[in-house]
Amino acid sequence: MSDISSPTHAAIDAAAVGNTLHRLRERSPLVQCLTNNVVMGWTANVLLAAGAAPAMVDNPREAGEFAAVADGVLINLGTPQDSTIAAMKVAVTTAADAGTPWVLDPVAVGGLSWRTGLVPELIQLEPPAVIRGNASEIMAVAGGSGGRGVDAIDSPEQAALPARQLSLGGPVVAVSGEVDHLVHHDRLVRVRNGHPWMTKVTGVGCALGALMAAFAGVEDDYLLAAVAATATLTVAADLAAENARGPGSFAMNLLDELSLLEPDTLAERVRLA
Amino acid sequence: MSDISSPTHAAIDAAAVGNTLHRLRERSPLVQCLTNNVVMGWTANVLLAAGAAPAMVDNPREAGEFAAVADGVLINLGTPQDSTIAAMKVAVTTAADAGTPWVLDPVAVGGLSWRTGLVPELIQLEPPAVIRGNASEIMAVAGGSGGRGVDAIDSPEQAALPARQLSLGGPVVAVSGEVDHLVHHDRLVRVRNGHPWMTKVTGVGCALGALMAAFAGVEDDYLLAAVAATATLTVAADLAAENARGPGSFAMNLLDELSLLEPDTLAERVRLA
Amino acid sequence: MSDISSPTHAAIDAAAVGNTLHRLRERSPLVQCLTNNVVMGWTANVLLAAGAAPAMVDNPREAGEFAAVADGVLINLGTPQDSTIAAMKVAVTTAADAGTPWVLDPVAVGGLSWRTGLVPELIQLEPPAVIRGNASEIMAVAGGSGGRGVDAIDSPEQAALPARQLSLGGPVVAVSGEVDHLVHHDRLVRVRNGHPWMTKVTGVGCALGALMAAFAGVEDDYLLAAVAATATLTVAADLAAENARGPGSFAMNLLDELSLLEPDTLAERVRLA
Repeated sequence: MSDISSPTHAAIDAAAVGNTLHRLRERSPLVQCLTNNVVMGWTANVLLAAGAAPAMVDNPREAGEFAAVADGVLINLGTPQDSTIAAMKVAVTTAADAGTPWVLDPVAVGGLSWRTGLVPELIQLEPPAVIRGNASEIMAVAGGSGGRGVDAIDSPEQAALPARQLSLGGPVVAVSGEVDHLVHHDRLVRVRNGHPWMTKVTGVGCALGALMAAFAGVEDDYLLAAVAATATLTVAADLAAENARGPGSFAMNLLDELSLLEPDTLAERVRLA
Repeated sequence: MSDISSPTHAAIDAAAVGNTLHRLRERSPLVQCLTNNVVMGWTANVLLAAGAAPAMVDNPREAGEFAAVADGVLINLGTPQDSTIAAMKVAVTTAADAGTPWVLDPVAVGGLSWRTGLVPELIQLEPPAVIRGNASEIMAVAGGSGGRGVDAIDSPEQAALPARQLSLGGPVVAVSGEVDHLVHHDRLVRVRNGHPWMTKVTGVGCALGALMAAFAGVEDDYLLAAVAATATLTVAADLAAENARGPGSFAMNLLDELSLLEPDTLAERVRLA
Repeated sequence: MSDISSPTHAAIDAAAVGNTLHRLRERSPLVQCLTNNVVMGWTANVLLAAGAAPAMVDNPREAGEFAAVADGVLINLGTPQDSTIAAMKVAVTTAADAGTPWVLDPVAVGGLSWRTGLVPELIQLEPPAVIRGNASEIMAVAGGSGGRGVDAIDSPEQAALPARQLSLGGPVVAVSGEVDHLVHHDRLVRVRNGHPWMTKVTGVGCALGALMAAFAGVEDDYLLAAVAATATLTVAADLAAENARGPGSFAMNLLDELSLLEPDTLAERVRLA
């Protein structure tokens, strides 16, 4: 057993990332998103542009029925209400029975009490394939304190150890930041692409969680799936920023670039470490 | 009585379509949208760009009060919750009393049980002026089976007969696809405009339902209203695609083109059959 | 005591407006938005582009907890539901205890009964720092009749006297229109910037209310805060319109221009009277 403080840098290479995007395009996975009201439209557009098929089935009467046929499920805690939380529990339970991967995005967990208490309830139903958040959210899920609202006050480096410990319970843990850290047990991958404007458009992180659910629907190595999702979004962001004047044109370009991004270009431009 | 298998191709001409858009602009109909959370903002922007006045009054306490003054009502089943379904029933009932047309968009009906059961409950309150969906949704409403989520797995041609049978109960039936089929009893219109990117932006079909409610507010021949809505959106889409790089710029351009579209241009460019 | 019919034109100058934007950028106030489902994403993007930090915490279990740490709170009545109204009451009560300013946007008040009755309930908990609406909404809050849906049928000039009377109860009152009127007791400011396309993009007025909550978080003179918010949005709109073809490109440009707008440029271009 390796020393917990020094995970092996994972042998995920750029070619595998490109191949995973190729597979996403071929299979167009059906992604059920139980997400917050702020980013629903944006999330659907990101998934469509990348090549997946989104469906926002988030009522308790139908969430389980849909999870049984979805290829991946996203649970995002941004704007929880009683009815959507009930739907999330049904969806996770059904996804577990069907062997369908689900992704947890613990928005603002640590900073707000109710949603912080919901995380262990969801995880005990079935460990997620991936937990994605900023450093403060990941530290809170791992048992530390939280940030203010949706802003991280901690760095991905600070979250590295808690993230790894959290991953020992099963899920891949993805810490978003200027450099993204993705960890699973002894495997660690850093993705160095992306642009500061990603923090000036609402829901870019939320859309990353949705992309992880899409990629997990076509790739059983969930670390590779999460890395491929991160690479796809951040490489598209690099390209989108080249011809943008500000966050409005950047957001528009990001959808265009996600749609135009070829697997070979992704493999060439992704900066893994 | 004509043979049900061979409806007459309708005598709706391009000039009438242009005139209907002209009337929409003059009257700016007030459209009450009870629609899904994914596309609310987008739907409002499409209506505003085309020249209508949207209002998303979807709580059960006020939905009836508003339906009494609206010019058209949209009921879209994309993300039903108990409270919005209650509001929909109140709105349809009041619209019926006021003689206000309502449009049904049966999103994912056939694929999900609860919403499938809601359709007959809504229709028995008052038949809608128009039912708009993809081929799978229309076949499900007409009594067949459904698709997966929001994606059609059937073609408009397959839905042609069920659509016509459904229209015998009252509503115009509009089947969206690469070619749109709009049918009412013996009258059939096909609209051949549009672009594949329409399927890569969330809510383009939902916005078409909203436009039908807007046009039905200014034109009592609901087949003409539905054709004019389809023509307006798809001709604007043709124009929008000319200078777009992908779904992001296409969506932006679509709003611009809807706003810029002149009735004469619409009449020139629409391809009816 | 001055004559109620002739308020003094306020001594708010352009330099103070520019300085207030500078302070917003330095402090990045945390703005809790309890707003309607149509404009949540757009509102968050406007706040981010301008330099504030949005958080849409609108469930009754967490709304108070968050209001205790927010710098400003927006209450927008566009699509009220029972649960969000409960959350609004908790948020206003906590904001009052914490001395945090809140802004009321009474969307469609006057035209719809339930929400019209909610306004006095909210105001009696604690008078808002600012009430922002169109002329019809402000007249309705002040005790008159209302408009149709979200459209003003009255002019800001007609609303000037009711607005001033309403302001005597505490809040700054901002009447949006071709010229914006902002009044507090004897002080009146008119802002003459802006573009007609602002009425062709959904949620521009709602985003103005959110910006007022942001500026009130960094400036205790709430009239100056409301003027700075109005100036920031309308000057950015002037710039956005210069290179726009229609409402789609205008909306995108507006986010870019909000992000690019320098305090000095704001001070130069704002037209106060």
